[in-house]
Amino acid sequence: MTATGLVQFDDWVDLYADRVETMRSSAVRDLFAAASRSDIISLSGGMPDIRKLPLDEVAEVTANAVREEGVAGLQYGDTQGRLQTKELICSLMTDVGIEITPDDLTVTTGAQQALDLLAKTFVNPGDLIITEGPTYLGALQAFSAYQPEVLTIEMDSQGMRTDILEAELKKRGKRCAKFLYTIPDFNNPAGVTMSLERRKHLLELSHEYEILIVEDDPYGRLRFEGEPIDRLRSMDDQVIYLGTVSKMFAPGLRTGWVIAPLPIRQKINLVKQGTDLCGSALCQVIVEHYFNTTDWRSTLGSMIDKYRERRNAMLAALREYFPPEASWTEPVGGFFVWVTLPEYLDTPQLLNIALDNGVTFVPGDGCYPAKSGKGKNAMRIAFCYEEPEKIREAIRRLSLVIEERMALYRAFRDAGAL
Amino acid sequence: MTATGLVQFDDWVDLYADRVETMRSSAVRDLFAAASRSDIISLSGGMPDIRKLPLDEVAEVTANAVREEGVAGLQYGDTQGRLQTKELICSLMTDVGIEITPDDLTVTTGAQQALDLLAKTFVNPGDLIITEGPTYLGALQAFSAYQPEVLTIEMDSQGMRTDILEAELKKRGKRCAKFLYTIPDFNNPAGVTMSLERRKHLLELSHEYEILIVEDDPYGRLRFEGEPIDRLRSMDDQVIYLGTVSKMFAPGLRTGWVIAPLPIRQKINLVKQGTDLCGSALCQVIVEHYFNTTDWRSTLGSMIDKYRERRNAMLAALREYFPPEASWTEPVGGFFVWVTLPEYLDTPQLLNIALDNGVTFVPGDGCYPAKSGKGKNAMRIAFCYEEPEKIREAIRRLSLVIEERMALYRAFRDAGAL
Repeated sequence: MTATGLVQFDDWVDLYADRVETMRSSAVRDLFAAASRSDIISLSGGMPDIRKLPLDEVAEVTANAVREEGVAGLQYGDTQGRLQTKELICSLMTDVGIEITPDDLTVTTGAQQALDLLAKTFVNPGDLIITEGPTYLGALQAFSAYQPEVLTIEMDSQGMRTDILEAELKKRGKRCAKFLYTIPDFNNPAGVTMSLERRKHLLELSHEYEILIVEDDPYGRLRFEGEPIDRLRSMDDQVIYLGTVSKMFAPGLRTGWVIAPLPIRQKINLVKQGTDLCGSALCQVIVEHYFNTTDWRSTLGSMIDKYRERRNAMLAALREYFPPEASWTEPVGGFFVWVTLPEYLDTPQLLNIALDNGVTFVPGDGCYPAKSGKGKNAMRIAFCYEEPEKIREAIRRLSLVIEERMALYRAFRDAGAL
Repeated sequence: MTATGLVQFDDWVDLYADRVETMRSSAVRDLFAAASRSDIISLSGGMPDIRKLPLDEVAEVTANAVREEGVAGLQYGDTQGRLQTKELICSLMTDVGIEITPDDLTVTTGAQQALDLLAKTFVNPGDLIITEGPTYLGALQAFSAYQPEVLTIEMDSQGMRTDILEAELKKRGKRCAKFLYTIPDFNNPAGVTMSLERRKHLLELSHEYEILIVEDDPYGRLRFEGEPIDRLRSMDDQVIYLGTVSKMFAPGLRTGWVIAPLPIRQKINLVKQGTDLCGSALCQVIVEHYFNTTDWRSTLGSMIDKYRERRNAMLAALREYFPPEASWTEPVGGFFVWVTLPEYLDTPQLLNIALDNGVTFVPGDGCYPAKSGKGKNAMRIAFCYEEPEKIREAIRRLSLVIEERMALYRAFRDAGAL
């Protein structure tokens, strides 16, 4: 239906490329409009709480950025990104134990673009990519445009089950996959963190089987307790590393980066030329000024305190309201909890009822490759955006929706109708 | 060679996707670094003269944008773009005779991204795309990632030779191409403008042979004299139209748009999700504030006056310095002049000598599909960025380089060595 209510036939339906057929819309994106409705409590988006940023300071920073470097910032920029931005990123990386020079990275239009560029650079239709299962739905979406086979490796509370990975690699052999994509810290959507032991095992396997590792680290700085675990890239400079300012500053600036060995990065730069010529130089200048001239560490610190409170509120509410048949992860950082429900429940269906009850979440099936059929009884719930009392209320509402469906199932089963 | 001077072997060379093999780096991008050297006069980039923007005003606009709409601007945005940005674009489109509603368009990360999204949506390897010859090298680069066949249609002073197009379509039949890409106004790189008669003929052919038309209009508002000619989209709402603020405001904001029939736009939105989630909401807010609160028409008017002066300087210098064997186009708007040299001259080679003499330009071969072998004796020279006296000096230097090569050729020929 069009906006005017007329059915519009698609005269071009036979013209679309094959890749479009396998693409699915992201539930997060589809829920984006709903999330801005005031009657909805959103547990769906991985949105940082921008409301906590010092907006007046950001406004001033931004004006200074234009005044001081507007001529460069408003012009086309280098495809690889501004040198000053790269220098800033190098210093941010030192914080997390990754020692690089500006020559080791390319600035991308958000880390999402880096996912697209990597798949565009490496994947022919039918090529294998390995990911965690569940994994970031935006990564699956980016990859799907290039029609890969996606093999998912289960996780437990210690992150990716590298023993399962090893068995798969043994079966498939060297260079069986174009790359392995992992989110070791505070996994999206699973909320678990890969242990140091598993990280070391993963790196060993990557060398033994010659598999490129792509480490995606949007949440790594958002740790609520405990000591940081070494980044894969800090232990092995063959690892491709993706970073972003989206969670530590602001996603609206679409500034991410990819660190990769030079020959790969040259290919990525070439591919990026055709994709968008260059990222926004103005956004890069603003990012530089924000990190170089404000007390961003203290701003981020307060935001982490907020996220910790909200995580606590969510876990407490889950314990209080959710039925014993449900289980969930207990993240020590990041934005997400992953809930597993009884197998007979269908979270894409539940979402419609939850929406009627004023709550959104992400159904788990979107976090697995489409044809796997997995994740239908799971959900990703985000604690990053709403205040504790709202989170508590959302979990209460969700629990009612779930229990109603469970009661319905039991009634059908007891009546012999199943 | 790496930055440290060591040869770095590419351990991953057998892992890259097939599409990477056919990609070429853009001369414009490669020359980007050279263009910022102070000893170089750049006739290569299509860079608007940002130095003429009222930077203090833009700084203030930007600060207001953050203060008033920072919470939305710094957050993730709608994949399709902000409603307010779309409303602004609708009013900008009314100026050029295109009547649309916000439901008719998607905001893209520069119009370059729209080219990528269109090819990603429509093109399987081996599919046909039709373009003008020569055409925008960034479009060829965007398309090449999806491995199309590209058919180029010659132009003359009236734009695309639609009689040649008609003969090709007759031969190939209905729906033989996924789309036809054209830059009717002040073509990049050719500098010519399609006549109204040709536009009408093109639209007739598009219906007769069911070929989607993609009208790219970055320069349309930069007319130096004469009356505007109806945009294709203003005559036919099946035309896909690409716009951008890059030339009328600033490329550093990476804000473009695509107008397309709803079913196509739905596909484009889906494809965009995986590509970069959403454009920068902050850039969109800044664009809104710039166009809604400053006297941008008068700013643009002064910039057009500058471009006209520079065009005049370039054409006068060409007449004064270039040899009679050279010919060139006479644009009535936009940024570019296309020069054709004797067939035995090779402009990619000439560029190296020109660089040594402090001038850059774009060799013509990049403006044709790689395997066509065309354009080697042509060059695109841009008058948008340098002051008249520098343009004059650059043309003088170029003429010396050209005449030296011509003299060398004649000497070889007269010695019987050719």
